[in-house]
Amino acid sequence: MAVYTQLDDDAARRLIARYGVGELISFKGIAEGVSNTNYLATTSALPAPGGQAVERQFILTVYESRTDVADLPFFLGLLDHLAAKRCPVPRTIHDASGAFLGTAEGKPAALIEFLPGVSISHPTPAQARAVGEALALVHLAAADFPGTRANGLGLTQWGELLRACGQEGLSAIHPELAGLVARELAALVARWPRDLPVGVIHADLFPDNVLMLGEKVSGLIDFYFACTDITAYDIAVTHAAWCFSSDGRQFDAELSAALLAGYESVRALSEAERAALPVLARGAAMRFLATRAYDWLNTPAGALVTRKDPMAFARRLEFYANPANAGVFDA
Amino acid sequence: MAVYTQLDDDAARRLIARYGVGELISFKGIAEGVSNTNYLATTSALPAPGGQAVERQFILTVYESRTDVADLPFFLGLLDHLAAKRCPVPRTIHDASGAFLGTAEGKPAALIEFLPGVSISHPTPAQARAVGEALALVHLAAADFPGTRANGLGLTQWGELLRACGQEGLSAIHPELAGLVARELAALVARWPRDLPVGVIHADLFPDNVLMLGEKVSGLIDFYFACTDITAYDIAVTHAAWCFSSDGRQFDAELSAALLAGYESVRALSEAERAALPVLARGAAMRFLATRAYDWLNTPAGALVTRKDPMAFARRLEFYANPANAGVFDA
Repeated sequence: MAVYTQLDDDAARRLIARYGVGELISFKGIAEGVSNTNYLATTSALPAPGGQAVERQFILTVYESRTDVADLPFFLGLLDHLAAKRCPVPRTIHDASGAFLGTAEGKPAALIEFLPGVSISHPTPAQARAVGEALALVHLAAADFPGTRANGLGLTQWGELLRACGQEGLSAIHPELAGLVARELAALVARWPRDLPVGVIHADLFPDNVLMLGEKVSGLIDFYFACTDITAYDIAVTHAAWCFSSDGRQFDAELSAALLAGYESVRALSEAERAALPVLARGAAMRFLATRAYDWLNTPAGALVTRKDPMAFARRLEFYANPANAGVFDA
Repeated sequence: MAVYTQLDDDAARRLIARYGVGELISFKGIAEGVSNTNYLATTSALPAPGGQAVERQFILTVYESRTDVADLPFFLGLLDHLAAKRCPVPRTIHDASGAFLGTAEGKPAALIEFLPGVSISHPTPAQARAVGEALALVHLAAADFPGTRANGLGLTQWGELLRACGQEGLSAIHPELAGLVARELAALVARWPRDLPVGVIHADLFPDNVLMLGEKVSGLIDFYFACTDITAYDIAVTHAAWCFSSDGRQFDAELSAALLAGYESVRALSEAERAALPVLARGAAMRFLATRAYDWLNTPAGALVTRKDPMAFARRLEFYANPANAGVFDA
């Protein structure tokens, strides 16, 4: 949520000039993304002599040290692949040499189409349905994307992160958290599915990362956790992200049904996928519990980043693990 | 440089709806302004049935505790007054009740026109000239503005802030700083002019607060230090802000001449005003030295705000106090 790399107007103008998108007429740092620097750039171009100037908006992202440069061709190439197949994702802008990856102040940088839309904090069922549809479109469109990227936040890493928190750390967050984690990690290791369809997944489709105009999805953004993993796990992540109050105390059955119906209207789930959703959802809840608990215990006081409550996902985990809620994912 | 007040999409939509500027289609926190929260909002409106949708951009500012609510009618009323007289400043947007001051999450808030333009870090003489012209336009246009506001950062406050730093604090910044400050504060108290024309001044016209398109000033922004004080002091502040390298080591005589010529092409200086510019410039340098030194010593490590080097203005102060540079302000 901060501008780590300051670009002055000269640097911004030089950078934008490489892309042939017109004159820079506005350039503002935006408070978006946790680990990279983002600017909103507006340009003005005359499409034809005597024509009217056209203003266009872009996001310029400067990738800071937390992003692995080697992953950028996967993330950016995926955007172009999905955009070409009419998924609502921003296109990357290519420079005169055809490259979508440039540099700013010695760091990797990319210019990406700006999409209109607002992130929804209290979705309606119609909006949840639209999100389900959009996610399924991405899964179908990504099927022939040639890139692959291992999930750096899978079952193994959840265990590592939570062990690094320590029994004492977890207990400091909540007296019963260490017990829940031990029990559920064991269950996940025993039951994690191995034969489900695998493909490119977004892996972080929270409301923050979906732009909407009314009931329409106008943009899916922030693909920087995208990776190759179980396709249905992406549904589980999206379910955990959309179907609860943010503190995890309230499950919304209507949103859940709408999200799943929207998804299946585009891509039908196999029986095995549907049967695996409960355990995948426990995994999804564990994934965010793990990173939040680790960050909670390791974020210095007064840091730039706001800590997010790990208990919000401990509650989701308990919900998904409770046999009384087994019917949530039934057709 | 941070978003202190988080507004979700519902709150944003409700707020924007009060202004009758169309549907909210984008809403992003921007990293602008040191003490308030700013969002960039884009709306879409159909001006007439069957017409084409028009997109408009606005800045939504939520005023945090450092801004005195009682001052807001002065700041916002001034923008409207200047905009009505064709100064390049953003207009405020009035709600259905005619008010330009609203609330967001219980804090005062205002919707302000977004102006295109880029802040210049290395101005050309033509750009400095345009800034001088724009400043003079503001001084003329503000002449019949009915509001007044005392300068909360005048000579008295510079002394208070620097005394609060203490000899030890100043010496920790630089071994010779306490001596310079004592000498110059005494000189300013003895020589500060008392009979010059007074009016509304911007008082903080740094390059950050000027938007330019090429060599044209497209916007003067951030009037939150505006007050009633010696008109020519505003020229001195602008001179200190524009005519040096940011570290204060390099004075640029060409920018200085262009800025002053631009100003005088719109509003001629009296002989008394011109004669006072050297001491006013020493005051301007002292004003930013005082707040920067105070903030330098009182900003906790790891705070959200980047500390600015007080020595950049100590160097300007030395420049202006040096009799060898007395000719800088001559016609």
